[in-house]
Amino acid sequence: MRETQTAAELFPAYAESPPDDRAAALRSVADALEAAAGDLVPAAMAETGLAEARLRGELTRTAVQLRLFAEVCTAGDYLGVRIDEPDPGFVLGPRPDLRRLRVPLGPALVFAASNFPFAFSVAGGDTAAALAAGCPVLVKAHPGHPRLAQRTAETVRAALAAAGQPADLLQLIHGQDTGVRALRDDRIAVASFTGSLAAGRVLAKVAAERDRPIPFYGELGSVNPVVVTPAALAERAGEIAAGFVASVSGSAGQLCTKPGFLFLSEGHGLAKALADAAAGVAEHPLLHPGIAAGYTQRRAAVLGAPGVELLAEGTVRSDSGGWTRVTPTLVRIDLAGLEKHRAALLDEAFGPLSIVVDYDPDRLTGAVGDLFPGSLTATVHSGADEDSDWLRDLVATLRDRAGRLIFNGWPTGVAVTPAMQHGGPYPSSTAAGTTSVGTAAIGRFLRPVTYQNCPPALLPPPLRDDNPWGVPQRRSPAGESVHWGRPNA
Amino acid sequence: MRETQTAAELFPAYAESPPDDRAAALRSVADALEAAAGDLVPAAMAETGLAEARLRGELTRTAVQLRLFAEVCTAGDYLGVRIDEPDPGFVLGPRPDLRRLRVPLGPALVFAASNFPFAFSVAGGDTAAALAAGCPVLVKAHPGHPRLAQRTAETVRAALAAAGQPADLLQLIHGQDTGVRALRDDRIAVASFTGSLAAGRVLAKVAAERDRPIPFYGELGSVNPVVVTPAALAERAGEIAAGFVASVSGSAGQLCTKPGFLFLSEGHGLAKALADAAAGVAEHPLLHPGIAAGYTQRRAAVLGAPGVELLAEGTVRSDSGGWTRVTPTLVRIDLAGLEKHRAALLDEAFGPLSIVVDYDPDRLTGAVGDLFPGSLTATVHSGADEDSDWLRDLVATLRDRAGRLIFNGWPTGVAVTPAMQHGGPYPSSTAAGTTSVGTAAIGRFLRPVTYQNCPPALLPPPLRDDNPWGVPQRRSPAGESVHWGRPNA
Repeated sequence: MRETQTAAELFPAYAESPPDDRAAALRSVADALEAAAGDLVPAAMAETGLAEARLRGELTRTAVQLRLFAEVCTAGDYLGVRIDEPDPGFVLGPRPDLRRLRVPLGPALVFAASNFPFAFSVAGGDTAAALAAGCPVLVKAHPGHPRLAQRTAETVRAALAAAGQPADLLQLIHGQDTGVRALRDDRIAVASFTGSLAAGRVLAKVAAERDRPIPFYGELGSVNPVVVTPAALAERAGEIAAGFVASVSGSAGQLCTKPGFLFLSEGHGLAKALADAAAGVAEHPLLHPGIAAGYTQRRAAVLGAPGVELLAEGTVRSDSGGWTRVTPTLVRIDLAGLEKHRAALLDEAFGPLSIVVDYDPDRLTGAVGDLFPGSLTATVHSGADEDSDWLRDLVATLRDRAGRLIFNGWPTGVAVTPAMQHGGPYPSSTAAGTTSVGTAAIGRFLRPVTYQNCPPALLPPPLRDDNPWGVPQRRSPAGESVHWGRPNA
Repeated sequence: MRETQTAAELFPAYAESPPDDRAAALRSVADALEAAAGDLVPAAMAETGLAEARLRGELTRTAVQLRLFAEVCTAGDYLGVRIDEPDPGFVLGPRPDLRRLRVPLGPALVFAASNFPFAFSVAGGDTAAALAAGCPVLVKAHPGHPRLAQRTAETVRAALAAAGQPADLLQLIHGQDTGVRALRDDRIAVASFTGSLAAGRVLAKVAAERDRPIPFYGELGSVNPVVVTPAALAERAGEIAAGFVASVSGSAGQLCTKPGFLFLSEGHGLAKALADAAAGVAEHPLLHPGIAAGYTQRRAAVLGAPGVELLAEGTVRSDSGGWTRVTPTLVRIDLAGLEKHRAALLDEAFGPLSIVVDYDPDRLTGAVGDLFPGSLTATVHSGADEDSDWLRDLVATLRDRAGRLIFNGWPTGVAVTPAMQHGGPYPSSTAAGTTSVGTAAIGRFLRPVTYQNCPPALLPPPLRDDNPWGVPQRRSPAGESVHWGRPNA
C-alpha cells in the first residue's frame, strides 16, 4: 500500500539522521501540540466524553513524553553501545574488534487506543518512542475519535515539516481492514497495539503468521488486583475506601490500570464506607458505543454470578446525546466464591466496576497466585513498618504476576519516567520484556547489530573511537576475556 | 508434566538466590564439564562425527561461556536497575519513588541444537544464560546425540548439587512430542530453539497459540551473504578464495554462519582458485541421517536449477558405518539468474555448499536488498582504505538485513563476548531484539518490574539504597524531570 511504501522509502535516511535532528523534531511536535490545545482539547471532548481537565493534563503528559524522548535521543545510552577491543590473548582464540549498537527496526505500525486520545493515540508514547528510535510511523486511528486523530496528525505533520523532516514520518490510516492490511505488509517491521484481548489476539496472530513475522507489542487487558492487609485496614480503613473508589471511578474506570479487585480481610466492615463513597461519584460518559456495550455485558455477567453481593449497584443510562453515562458498580464476594465462579468474574470489566473480595489470610497468597496470571500492576496496602513472612510471600507472588508493584497507593496514574514499567505477564502484555510507558519504551523499536573489524571510516558515529555524538560506550578491554575465561587459573 | 512442575516449584527460591550463589553454580558446572572432557568428547565424536579438536575447542567455549555468565551474575548490570527519586515538583504531578529491575521470567525450555553438541546443547549458551538469570531449565535433548545429552546432563546436575543447588535446576527431556507438550505447559515461561525453519515455525506457532503465549526465541536459518568488492578482489583474490572455502567447509558447513553466497564482481577469474581450494578439502561426515537427507535434497535442487554452473561438484558418499561423508560443492550463477531462480536457490543449504554470484556493481546493492530478508551475518571484503557512496550504500543495506556485519573476515567463528550479536531479522531469528550468543543473551530470560513507593525493608537487594550486592544503579534525581518536562521554559 502507498503509505507503507512511503514509510519504507523514508526509513534509511531517517534511521541515519543525527540524534539532535530527531530530538528537534520531537520537541517541535510537543510545542505544536501544546500550541494547538485550544483546538485539540475541545475536539477530544466532543468525541470521547472525557472531561476538559483530564484531557488538558493528558495533552501536557503527551508533550512532556515527546520532550522526554528527545532527551533520550541525545543522551544516547539507549543505543546500548558495547565495544570489545581486539584481544589476541582471548582464551577462545584471537578476539576481533566487535562494536555493538541498537538500530531502528524499520517502519512502525501503531494502533491507537480509545481511552487516551492523546497519550496512547496519534502522538502518544509508542509514536514518540518509534520516532525517537529512528522509525517512520503509521498510526491506525481509533474509530472512537477519528476527527481528533486527523487534527492531531495534521499538527504533528506540520511540526515535523517545520523541523526540517518529511511530514510523512507520521502517516494516519483509518479502518480495521486497512490496519490489518498494513500489519500484513512486508514493509512494516514492528507493530504495537493497546486494546481488547479479542482484537489483540487477532492482530498478534496476523503478525505471527506473516511470511516474515514481526515483533507485536500488545497491551490486552489487566485486572490490577489490590490487597489490603489486616494491619493497613486497622490503620486507615476510611482512607483506603475513599482512595479505592476514586481510582475505580476516575475517567469512568476506562483506564488500563483501574483496580478490578480489592482484597479485604474477612470481617473488614468496609461495605458501608465503600457504598457511601461510590454514591458520591457523579455520572461520567463512556468513550463510545462499543465500550458501552462491552461494559453493560460484563456488568450483567458479574451481577448475575452466584455468590455476588451488591455494595453499590451503580447506574448505566443512555442520554439523548448518544452517550452512555455511568456511576460505579461495586460488588462483594468471598475468596471461595471468586475461585468457584472465576469464569464469570475474572475478565477485565472496562468501566467503573470493581469486585471486593473478602479473604482468609491463610488462603490469600495461594489463591491470588492461582487466579491472576498477569496484570500491568499489583498493589499492596500494608501497615506502617509491617513485615512478616506472610507479607513477603504475598509480595513475591504478586511480583511474579505484574509489571509494576505499588505500595500504599493506587495503580491509576502512570508516571512517564526512566524507571517506569508498563507491561506485565500475559495478557497485560504480549511482550512483558518491554514497556509502553517511560523512556525504556524506545527499546521496542530497536534491535542490536554488531560491527566486526569495521574500517573506522565506515563505522556509524556512535561506534567510533572519537565518539562524535558523545554517547556512553561500554568498553571491554583486551585482557579482560582472560579473566572471564579463566577465573580459577 | 512432572518436570515442569518440579521446575515451577524450584523457581521462586532460585529466582531470589544471591548472584554469588548462581555464579558459583555456573563455575561448578564449567569445571565439571572440563573435568569430564575425557568422557564427553569421545561421546560427542561417536554421535556427531565431528572432529576431536573441534569438539575440544567447543567444550572449552562452553565452559568459558558458563564462567562468563557467572561474571555477568555478579557484575549485576544485567539487572538494568533504574531508580527515580520521588519528585514533588514533577511537571505531571508528584512523582513517586520508582525502582525498576529485571527479574527472571520463570522455568525455561531449551531445545538443543544438533550442530553444537556442547555450545548450543544441554549446557550451552541458552542454558547458561537462563541459569544466570535465575530460571530453572528443561532441555529437550537433540535426537542426534541423546547419549551425550544424557551424560552432559548428569555432569551438570552433579555439579549443581555440589554447589549446593538442586540438581533439578537442569532437567533433560527426550522426544519431539514431549518437547511440544512441555512447550504447551502453562508452567513454562520462555522457550528457545536453534534448528530448521520448518520445525521452528511449528514451535513458534505452539508458543503463540497457548492460552498464555510466551516468548519464543528461534534461530531458524541464515544464508550469510559475503560481498567482495572489486578493490578487495584486485588486492587479495587468492587469500579470499582460500578463506571462503575454509569457511564453507569447516565442520562440513554445518554452521549457522556458513557463507551461503559469495558475491564476486563480473570477470573475477576466481573459478579455478575456488575449485582448487575445494578439491583440497578432506571428506567430513554429516551430523546425522536427517541432515544428510536434507543436504542431499537441497544440493540436488541447486544443481538442477537453470543457469547454475559447477565450480566444484563435491561428493556425497554413504560409508559402511552409517555416516554420509561429503566434500564441498561450489556452484556459480550470475545475479540475473539468482533473481530469476530464487525459489530454488535462496533457501539455506545446511552443509558444505555455497553459491558464487557474479555481479554487476551497478545492480548489486538493490539486488542484495531484495534477495536477502534476514541473516545472522553479512560480510564485506573491501580494499585497503576503500570508501565510496557505492560501498556505503552496500554496507547500509547489509546492515539492515543482518545481526552482525563482518569486514574482511569470515562469518564462521562467533566470539562469546559482551558486544556479540547472534540473531538478525527473520528468519535468522524470531526475536532479532535478542541474541543467543554473548553476555547480552541473559536478557532473553528476564522482564522488568517496577516497585513503586515500596517500604525499604521489602525492596529486593538490588533496589535498596544501601545496595548490598553492589550493582550499578542508574538514578534520576528529583528535579531532573522538570528539565525533561520543560526544556524550553
